[in-house]
Amino acid sequence: MPGSTLSGPPASGTGGGMTPRTAVPKLVIIMVGLPARGKSYIVRKLCRYLNWLQYETRVFNVGERRRLAGRITELDGDHDKAGASRLGRTLFSSSAAFFDPTDPSLVSVRDDIALETLDELLDWLSSRENSSIGILDATNSTRERRERVLSRIRRSTCTCTSTGILFLESCCFDRDILDQNFRLKLQGPDYRTQDPDRGLEDFRQRVAFYEKSYVPLGEAEEQERIPYLQVIDVGRKINTHLIQGFLSSRIVEYMLNFNLSKRQIWIFCGGESTDDSVGRIGRPSDLTEAGRHYAASLVRFIHEQREQWEANRERKMCWVQNNHEPAEFAPGGGQARSQDPPGTAADRSPHRPLNLCIWTSTMPQTVQTVSGFSDVLFPKSEMKMLDDLNAGDMAGLTFDDIAALHPAVHAARKQHKLLYRWPGLGGECYLDLIERLRPVILELERRKDHLLVVTHRAVVRVLLSYFLDLRRDDLAEMVIPKNWGFLLEPAPYGIEFSAYSYQPVSGTFRLEPEVSRGRFLPGSILQSGSKEVEG
Amino acid sequence: MPGSTLSGPPASGTGGGMTPRTAVPKLVIIMVGLPARGKSYIVRKLCRYLNWLQYETRVFNVGERRRLAGRITELDGDHDKAGASRLGRTLFSSSAAFFDPTDPSLVSVRDDIALETLDELLDWLSSRENSSIGILDATNSTRERRERVLSRIRRSTCTCTSTGILFLESCCFDRDILDQNFRLKLQGPDYRTQDPDRGLEDFRQRVAFYEKSYVPLGEAEEQERIPYLQVIDVGRKINTHLIQGFLSSRIVEYMLNFNLSKRQIWIFCGGESTDDSVGRIGRPSDLTEAGRHYAASLVRFIHEQREQWEANRERKMCWVQNNHEPAEFAPGGGQARSQDPPGTAADRSPHRPLNLCIWTSTMPQTVQTVSGFSDVLFPKSEMKMLDDLNAGDMAGLTFDDIAALHPAVHAARKQHKLLYRWPGLGGECYLDLIERLRPVILELERRKDHLLVVTHRAVVRVLLSYFLDLRRDDLAEMVIPKNWGFLLEPAPYGIEFSAYSYQPVSGTFRLEPEVSRGRFLPGSILQSGSKEVEG
Repeated sequence: MPGSTLSGPPASGTGGGMTPRTAVPKLVIIMVGLPARGKSYIVRKLCRYLNWLQYETRVFNVGERRRLAGRITELDGDHDKAGASRLGRTLFSSSAAFFDPTDPSLVSVRDDIALETLDELLDWLSSRENSSIGILDATNSTRERRERVLSRIRRSTCTCTSTGILFLESCCFDRDILDQNFRLKLQGPDYRTQDPDRGLEDFRQRVAFYEKSYVPLGEAEEQERIPYLQVIDVGRKINTHLIQGFLSSRIVEYMLNFNLSKRQIWIFCGGESTDDSVGRIGRPSDLTEAGRHYAASLVRFIHEQREQWEANRERKMCWVQNNHEPAEFAPGGGQARSQDPPGTAADRSPHRPLNLCIWTSTMPQTVQTVSGFSDVLFPKSEMKMLDDLNAGDMAGLTFDDIAALHPAVHAARKQHKLLYRWPGLGGECYLDLIERLRPVILELERRKDHLLVVTHRAVVRVLLSYFLDLRRDDLAEMVIPKNWGFLLEPAPYGIEFSAYSYQPVSGTFRLEPEVSRGRFLPGSILQSGSKEVEG
Repeated sequence: MPGSTLSGPPASGTGGGMTPRTAVPKLVIIMVGLPARGKSYIVRKLCRYLNWLQYETRVFNVGERRRLAGRITELDGDHDKAGASRLGRTLFSSSAAFFDPTDPSLVSVRDDIALETLDELLDWLSSRENSSIGILDATNSTRERRERVLSRIRRSTCTCTSTGILFLESCCFDRDILDQNFRLKLQGPDYRTQDPDRGLEDFRQRVAFYEKSYVPLGEAEEQERIPYLQVIDVGRKINTHLIQGFLSSRIVEYMLNFNLSKRQIWIFCGGESTDDSVGRIGRPSDLTEAGRHYAASLVRFIHEQREQWEANRERKMCWVQNNHEPAEFAPGGGQARSQDPPGTAADRSPHRPLNLCIWTSTMPQTVQTVSGFSDVLFPKSEMKMLDDLNAGDMAGLTFDDIAALHPAVHAARKQHKLLYRWPGLGGECYLDLIERLRPVILELERRKDHLLVVTHRAVVRVLLSYFLDLRRDDLAEMVIPKNWGFLLEPAPYGIEFSAYSYQPVSGTFRLEPEVSRGRFLPGSILQSGSKEVEG
C-alpha cells in the first residue's frame, strides 16, 4: 500500500475509514543479463505482483524502443541514405550485426536507445504522483553500460525525492532451460517472421556478441555499495547484496518463491450457504441443499480433471527438464517433501500422481464444500487468511438492508470499494484483503503441487486480480458469476486461464470458451456473466 | 503452526475451534563457519524466532559438549594417566592445541564429539512428536566433516519420516565486525577466566588452525544438490541454493532482515479506554480522561528518552562501525531511505537524530494515545496487523459476563488460551495472532529506526514473547501489568530489556529495576505486577 509500511490503509477507528494519500516510495529496477535468460519473464511476473500490491509499476523495454526506432527510421526513408541506411536496416531487421560490440558507432547507438528508455522511465517516475517502481528491461551486461545508467540516474532531476536503485540479474547455466528460452525467442517479435534455422543462427550470433563483453554483477557493484539481486537458473541460486529497503525486501521475498513446475491451480467459491440464499453477506453459514449438490459435483469434476491431467502428464510435467530438486535423504523421506507439512508435497517420481492440496477458509461454507474429498488422499488446510472479506457491523445484512438502514455506509462503499473499510470490529476493505492474502500468493508460487482453493467471492476476486494482472478499478468492480470456477496454469509466457460454469441440473462444470479463449479482458467478459450480488 | 502450511490453526466454523494436532515438519540445520563469525548469535536469534512461530526448535552446541567432555575427563582423574591426560587437559583448557588439524587423533576426537552431538539432535527430533527443528551449532568448516555429518543423517533411523536438511553458513570479511567478535569471544566460556592477551593469542591460533582446512559452502554442495544459505557480513550479502521447503523459506526470509543497528524499540499498550474502565474487551473504544492523561505523559516520556539516547549517541550508534549502508544517490535522497515510505527511514548522518517511527493499531484507543506526537516529526503508521486479538462474539463483554453468559466458552478458553479461537465472525486465538504479527516482526527486525509500538495487551504479550523467548505456556499466561511499557534494545548477545511502570499522579514512567535487572524470567516477575484483567 503506497505510503504505509506493511499495513493496510490507515483509517480512523476500525471502520468506515478512507486511505489518506501519502507519498509513494520510488524504486528503479535495472535488469541485467544476457539475452534469453528469462529477464522478460521475470519482469512481467514481478510487475504483476507489485501492481497487485498496489505499487504502480511499469516496465520500460529497450528492445521495444530499438524496434520502434528501426521502424521509424525505415518510414522516414532514411534507409535510402548512406550512413544512416545500414543503421536503419540493422535496427529494423534486429539482425545480430547490430549487436557487434567492436563497432563503436553501434555501441553508442545502443547506449543511446537504452538511456532514452531510462529517461522515459525517470520521467514517468517523477512526473506522476502514484508511480512507484520503474523497471528498465535491457541486457545492461557491461560495466560501462551500467555506469552510464547509474550516472544518468544520479544526475536526474527526478531523483530529488529519494529514489532507490536495485540491480536484478538473471543468469542461466542450465542447458535445458537455455535451449527452451532460445526456442521461445524464435517466436518473439525479432524472429517470428523469419526462417527458424536462420533466426536461431542469427540469435546465437547476437548472444555471442553479448558474451564477449558480459560482466555479471559482483565485485564492482559491491565496492560501490549498489544493492543487487542475482537469480541463477530460475531460483536454483539467489544471491543478494545490500538488500535493505522495504520494496527491495518484498521483491527478494517474491523471487525466492519462483518455480517452473507445470501444475493446476483451481479457484472456486464455496457452495451456496443459507446466508447466500437470502443475500446476507459475510457470516459463517452452512451449505444449503443446493450448496451440497454443488460440493458433490465439485468432487467429481476435480477427480476427472486430475485424471485427465495425469493422462497427459508426459508432455505437461515441466517446460524444461528440472534438475533442481534438492537431493533426497533417507528411506521414505525426501528433502523436497520434508519441509512441507508431511504428506502435502508431491513425490516427483513419475510413478505417482502429482499431489492435489486443498485450501479453504475457516468458514463452514467452504469447509463443507470440500468435505467430500478424502482427507487421506488430499491434504487439506483451513486458513484464516482465506476467510471472507470481513464486513464488520454489516455482516449478516443484505445489500438492500445496508442501503436502507445505513445509506451513508452504502454510498461511501459504492464510491470507493477498494479503499472503504466496513465499519465495526474487524471490518476490512479490499486493500486489507490484499495485504492479508500476500502470504497466500507467496505460498501458491512456492508450491509445486496442484492446488484447489475454495474460498469466498471477494477473495476469489483478489486472487484472480493477481493472476490476471487486473488494476485497482477492475479489481473492485469485477463480477464473479455465481458458481463459476477458475483454472490457472503457469506457462512459459505467463498464465493460462480457463473459466468453468456450474451446471446445476447435470451437476457438471462447463468450460466457457469465450472467457477462456485468448487473454482475459478485465472487467468486461466476466461482467457479462449472470447478474450477481455485489460483494 | 505445526502441521498447517501458513494458516493459523484449523478449526470448525470461524470460532470456538481447537487446533487438531497434526504431524510436525522436521528440519536439521547444520551451521558452517569459522570461529567468531557470529554463528551462535544467528543461531540464538533464529531459534527464538522459530520457537515463537511455534515450531519447536533446539540448538545442539558442539562446543558445550566439548567443554563438558573435558570436565568429565578431568573429574574422572584421567588427567593423571598418560595418553588420555593430554587430551583431557586440552579439552578442559579449550586451548588452541586441541584444534590442530594436522593431528589425526585430535581430528578424530573432534569429529566424534560433533557426531555425538548430532546423534543427540537426531534422537531429539525423532523421539518427540512436537520437535521440529534441530540446529547443529558447530564450525563444520571442512568438506570431510560435512560429508560425515550428511552420511550420519542419511543412515539415521530417525529420518524414516522425511527430514529436511539446510546448511547455514556465516562468513565474515569485515575487519570491524571480526574484531568485535574476537573481543566478545574473550568474554565467552572458553576464555573468560584467562588473561585477555594470552586468551586472544590462543584464540587467534585456534582460528588459524581452522582457516587451514576451511572450505566455504559452494560447488561441492551444489553438485550434491544440498540446500544452503550463506550469510556474509551479517546480511550484507545473502546467497541461497535450492531453498524450496516451507521452513527453509521462512528462515531465509528472516535472515534477510538482520541488522546490527543500535536503536530502541518501545512497546506500550494504549491508554485506558471507556471499555477498559468497565472491563469490556475487544472493541474499538475512545480514551477516558485517565487515558488522555497517560497519552500526554507518554509523549513527554518518549521525548525525554529520545533526548537521552541522542546525548549518549556516540557510544550507542552501532556495536561495530557499519560500512554496509547502500550508496546514496541524488541530492536529498538516500538509497537506504528511499524505499521506506518517504520520511520514515533514518538519515544515518551524525548531525541528525535517529528517526522515531510510531506504529499503532487502527483502533481509536491506540491512535488517540499517540495523537500528541507531531505528525511532522514522527512518521506514524496505523496497522491492522496490530489490532487487538479479535474476540468475535465476545467483544464488548467483560470476562465476568462471559463466565456467566457463556460458561462453556469461558471454560474452553481458560483451558487452552493459546489454541482456543473466540467464537463468531473474525474470532481469533493466540496462534492466529502470531501468524498475523509475523510480518510485523520481520519489519521490526528490518528497520534501523527507533520504533514506538502502541497496541493492545494481547498483542504486547505476543510481541514480548518473541523478544524474550517465551514458550507456549508462558505466552498465554503472562500478565502484563496495567500501563507498563517495555524497552527492547538489540545488543551483541541478545536483547536488553527494561520495563517502565506508569505513575498516574506524577504523569511519569518509572524504571522497574527488579524486572529490568538481569534476564527476564518468564511468567514470574511480570506476574508479580498489579492484578490485571486477563485477555
